[in-house]
Amino acid sequence: MERSIDAQLDELKRQILVMGGHVEKALHEVILALFKKEDFRFQAVHKMEDQINEDQVRVDNFCIQLLAKQSPVAKDLRMILSIIKINTDLERMGDQATNIAFTAQDYLKRKPVPQAQVLVKMSEVVRHMVKESLDSFVRGDVVLARKILLMDDEVDATKNQVFKDLAEHMKKNSDDIEASLDVILMARNLERLGDHATNIAEDVIYAVTGQDIRHGGIYER
Amino acid sequence: MERSIDAQLDELKRQILVMGGHVEKALHEVILALFKKEDFRFQAVHKMEDQINEDQVRVDNFCIQLLAKQSPVAKDLRMILSIIKINTDLERMGDQATNIAFTAQDYLKRKPVPQAQVLVKMSEVVRHMVKESLDSFVRGDVVLARKILLMDDEVDATKNQVFKDLAEHMKKNSDDIEASLDVILMARNLERLGDHATNIAEDVIYAVTGQDIRHGGIYER
Repeated sequence: MERSIDAQLDELKRQILVMGGHVEKALHEVILALFKKEDFRFQAVHKMEDQINEDQVRVDNFCIQLLAKQSPVAKDLRMILSIIKINTDLERMGDQATNIAFTAQDYLKRKPVPQAQVLVKMSEVVRHMVKESLDSFVRGDVVLARKILLMDDEVDATKNQVFKDLAEHMKKNSDDIEASLDVILMARNLERLGDHATNIAEDVIYAVTGQDIRHGGIYER
Repeated sequence: MERSIDAQLDELKRQILVMGGHVEKALHEVILALFKKEDFRFQAVHKMEDQINEDQVRVDNFCIQLLAKQSPVAKDLRMILSIIKINTDLERMGDQATNIAFTAQDYLKRKPVPQAQVLVKMSEVVRHMVKESLDSFVRGDVVLARKILLMDDEVDATKNQVFKDLAEHMKKNSDDIEASLDVILMARNLERLGDHATNIAEDVIYAVTGQDIRHGGIYER
């Protein structure tokens, strides 16, 4: 008996949620590794990254089969296209968590800088964004999706402040330059993670309303 | 008379090439703005960015119509999915060029650092990558696509060297810290542009061969 397209879309959504859980876990582990100085957690991040990559291939193949066999139109088609994009964003979030892990491994060899503490707060906001963006996706909740765009502004503002603080710190503490650069890079990676969650929120708004809000004219470096 | 799917795919490819040309131009203009100190060129970058955003929406809508009306399968379906992904990458390349423009505007207010010169070389390699990745796409040239992966290694290596050089420079020249950070950020943006060209090359290999080489286990921060 052939399953209906609704059941298959539900299965796809479930797979996206599982994948999002892997992204959240990767991010959680890398921050714990960094602040508890627990090296073994880096292995967990890399394992999660492998898992996320497998997830991505599975979701992509599922979407291709669905498109080929069901020839969906209108809202179903928009939903599948959104899933293809969300899938790419989640995979790149996994890459960003891995990038943080590589920088964190260098950072742990150096004398820490006090400004690094802000990464904990940033990572909590970003994890929240990941979770909420996927909740908004599964529930088709446009109001929640719009909230994520505001949370991203908070992440960007924090990152800009960290950059300024660290530039000042480096001027007075030339021995801390490498450690400060590591923190700048990790803050940048967290900001990118937030951007990907924002992309997901925008895809949700598009999938639900058919409204394209991607190019509102606001850019952040 | 209904056009065949081949003619429509050719039209899509043409649109992608035009969009790629806009990305190349944005990148060219921002580097000229930076090194010739010609402020008016920043306007050209922002105009190009608006154009790229319009391109993206047009290509996405074209893909949706094609999927809905022609119900493509097998190779045609893989081609359309690749175009959807390439479209996203090109749009994000436009964002990166814009990010460079914002940082460059700050940088031009500061005393320049000699290491900035390397951005010219990096940007030339990246522009070459953009062009070649789209050539490989249009011609379905897997050999060329694989060459782009090697060029990306060169960009990553250059970026790592710039980071090291600037860390050393900042230690000895605390007045140059802001300008050095600007160069680091712009080098990072160029590296991200190279990553997007690499994504396109990987999509080409997938579209042509059906082979998924995205997760070869090599990560770069």
